[in-house]
Amino acid sequence: MVPHLTTALTGPLLELEKRFLGHATEIERWMRTQWQDHMPPFYASTDLRNSGFKLAPVDLNLFPGGWNNLNDVFMPLCVQAAQDAIERICPDARQLLLIPENHTRNLFYLQNVAKLVSVLQLTGLDVRVGSLLPEVTAPMTLELPNGSTLTLEPLERHGARVGLAGFDPCAILLNNDLSAGIPPILKGLDEQWLIPPLHAGWHVRRKSIHAAAYDRVAREFADVIGIDPWRINPEFGVCGQINFQERTGEECLAVQVDSLLQRIREKYREYGIDETPFVVVKADAGTYGMGVMTVRDASEVKGLNRRQRNKMSVVKEGLQVQEVIIQEGVHTFETVDDAVAEPVVYMMDRFVVGGFYRVHTERGRDENLNAPGMHFKPLAFQTCCSLPDCRQAPDAAPNRFYAYGVVARLALLAASVEIEETAPAEADMVA
Amino acid sequence: MVPHLTTALTGPLLELEKRFLGHATEIERWMRTQWQDHMPPFYASTDLRNSGFKLAPVDLNLFPGGWNNLNDVFMPLCVQAAQDAIERICPDARQLLLIPENHTRNLFYLQNVAKLVSVLQLTGLDVRVGSLLPEVTAPMTLELPNGSTLTLEPLERHGARVGLAGFDPCAILLNNDLSAGIPPILKGLDEQWLIPPLHAGWHVRRKSIHAAAYDRVAREFADVIGIDPWRINPEFGVCGQINFQERTGEECLAVQVDSLLQRIREKYREYGIDETPFVVVKADAGTYGMGVMTVRDASEVKGLNRRQRNKMSVVKEGLQVQEVIIQEGVHTFETVDDAVAEPVVYMMDRFVVGGFYRVHTERGRDENLNAPGMHFKPLAFQTCCSLPDCRQAPDAAPNRFYAYGVVARLALLAASVEIEETAPAEADMVA
Repeated sequence: MVPHLTTALTGPLLELEKRFLGHATEIERWMRTQWQDHMPPFYASTDLRNSGFKLAPVDLNLFPGGWNNLNDVFMPLCVQAAQDAIERICPDARQLLLIPENHTRNLFYLQNVAKLVSVLQLTGLDVRVGSLLPEVTAPMTLELPNGSTLTLEPLERHGARVGLAGFDPCAILLNNDLSAGIPPILKGLDEQWLIPPLHAGWHVRRKSIHAAAYDRVAREFADVIGIDPWRINPEFGVCGQINFQERTGEECLAVQVDSLLQRIREKYREYGIDETPFVVVKADAGTYGMGVMTVRDASEVKGLNRRQRNKMSVVKEGLQVQEVIIQEGVHTFETVDDAVAEPVVYMMDRFVVGGFYRVHTERGRDENLNAPGMHFKPLAFQTCCSLPDCRQAPDAAPNRFYAYGVVARLALLAASVEIEETAPAEADMVA
Repeated sequence: MVPHLTTALTGPLLELEKRFLGHATEIERWMRTQWQDHMPPFYASTDLRNSGFKLAPVDLNLFPGGWNNLNDVFMPLCVQAAQDAIERICPDARQLLLIPENHTRNLFYLQNVAKLVSVLQLTGLDVRVGSLLPEVTAPMTLELPNGSTLTLEPLERHGARVGLAGFDPCAILLNNDLSAGIPPILKGLDEQWLIPPLHAGWHVRRKSIHAAAYDRVAREFADVIGIDPWRINPEFGVCGQINFQERTGEECLAVQVDSLLQRIREKYREYGIDETPFVVVKADAGTYGMGVMTVRDASEVKGLNRRQRNKMSVVKEGLQVQEVIIQEGVHTFETVDDAVAEPVVYMMDRFVVGGFYRVHTERGRDENLNAPGMHFKPLAFQTCCSLPDCRQAPDAAPNRFYAYGVVARLALLAASVEIEETAPAEADMVA
């Protein structure tokens, strides 16, 4: 049942995984001390890329969907971790309001919401789902493909509190990434716990801030186990003031791309890697795999055609792209059934609770897989990524997944640092 | 793979299990609030008996062995729960000393120790094993039947600290129940964390104190879900000043047995139960299933023959029995492969992390199964006892196991209350 992992994974990654395995006790102790200083996010998922010579996160989602894609074997881990998360944030909570994305037709997304509801109920919370959609004016029960149902209810605002008819929750869990900004109904809720905090939403979040936090976390961690931080850390640059439609900022972008490609080339030379370096240009505030471009040469970002410019200009909720991050591309050398695949790791509180492979049959190993046509292999991760097995070879599934779990938690820690550092001052929060 | 559950389980237990399932959210919330007020034990196991009309714990072990009998699928749950336990008790711990029972030849017990070591290492601790045995004068590495090894090292005392050569731990985990009293080398360790606290050892612990705490917990819980507490709570009585050899205290015992049997008979009448009531007489401070007698009539405890008196007189480490608890017997109506079976549930911190069946082919359903000839079915619990599945029937395995997990956690909570209430005053601790 464990997917066949082909490719260059007989090469340098074994050495990297061996290093992780050999230092598992130090790693776990270091993690433990980090979580004494930082508050873990309630939940998160991260996309990893595994190129054999490099294992790195390329995205971290603070409003993860896709919980329905996890193997049900991981349910107890999720519930146990969710209990920790609830006790940490709002131990007295009895009622929790879940606010999902504004989808009523994406049944796979709604299955994700239903799965979250059942996890949270098992921690001892009354959980109901409130929709931001204006068309939800009365409770609406949807039948889901897996046979379960989900009821969306209209939100109600009373003074400084939001809830549902007959439901006044003390905690609100957002599974909506706020790409369109903070809806007025969620502003000024100073009596209720908002999880994650509003400033974790994509209306203010920037990939580059996360990348900078990850850079520091990765350096500190690399020091603990004695590796070059580059082995787990994609380099990056930023361009503000881009307007793809008006073709302003192209020169800045080309310079950054060229500089980053040059740095990668040097690293490839240092490690004797015979691959073509590439970078990925992404909207700094974007999500959903929109506004993403793979670039192998700086000339490619100059003179983009209309289709390319349109594609890069707009991300979710029609937001205009003005800032981009240029991130070192990490090849994915993993395949599932001959299709290119990347691991996605799910976390709750400070724990890895599961994962799956994102698979795309039409994409190359240096391309973004978060695109229409992708599919998921929920069964792929049979183990939960949290435990190494020292008696097995470093490339045995539990060990590969342990390495994934470690790198995923580094990204989680970076998100924690990022949320702390970007928290608005008290005065701003009241405003 | 789930064992065939036969017998009366089509009867009233379904109603009890339905009640648990229907109140899962309230139950979990109530548990959450209880753990805000009480410190969970580091670890524990409990023996449950399931008679169809009654589901109750009959023993709670604060120094559980048998971790090797758990399904490996539960490993991540154990590690996650152990992380919570460590962070709660000694978050800064780097080194932990495990002190096991004084066995060097019981390889199954030592596999249990090895399993605990690996769980704790995965939380980021350096774990080593120190033996109280005088013959362990140098590190002794034992080969275990499952192919792993375990190294026992001699303890070293330096001032107010105990450790090993070159190993100065900040935490000491006891997997030794202190039946023989507190070894001098463990006295006055006021700089190190002792887990569980010394007063949880059998040199001071009494089953009757636990039963009294459980009685209160069960009543409060029964109120939450609206059941008769008797459905989850074995009645009990106590006799002090027993001397089986000298035949003193027999009359007190007979009176208590008779009174308890009378109360059970009334309850059986109330519920229309057509079974023969019985009670179990146990040493109040005993363990290991020693000093246990099943009694169906008060006359049986008078005029015991020499063999019976010898059996009841002495428990582990040769301790003389002076106090006994008379506990309402709960039939076990569960069978595995036609042999009588009882579930054993394992917990770490406040979480159920696994379990198995104790099976005895030579014993009846109203007898103690913790006796030579018993065996374990580690595969029996395929699910971890922590999650109900409301879409399945109440007697489906996840749901039966959820009920087990709830009752087990009630016993855990009672142990927590018991440890709090029996804690010595500060002045006593220094003495």
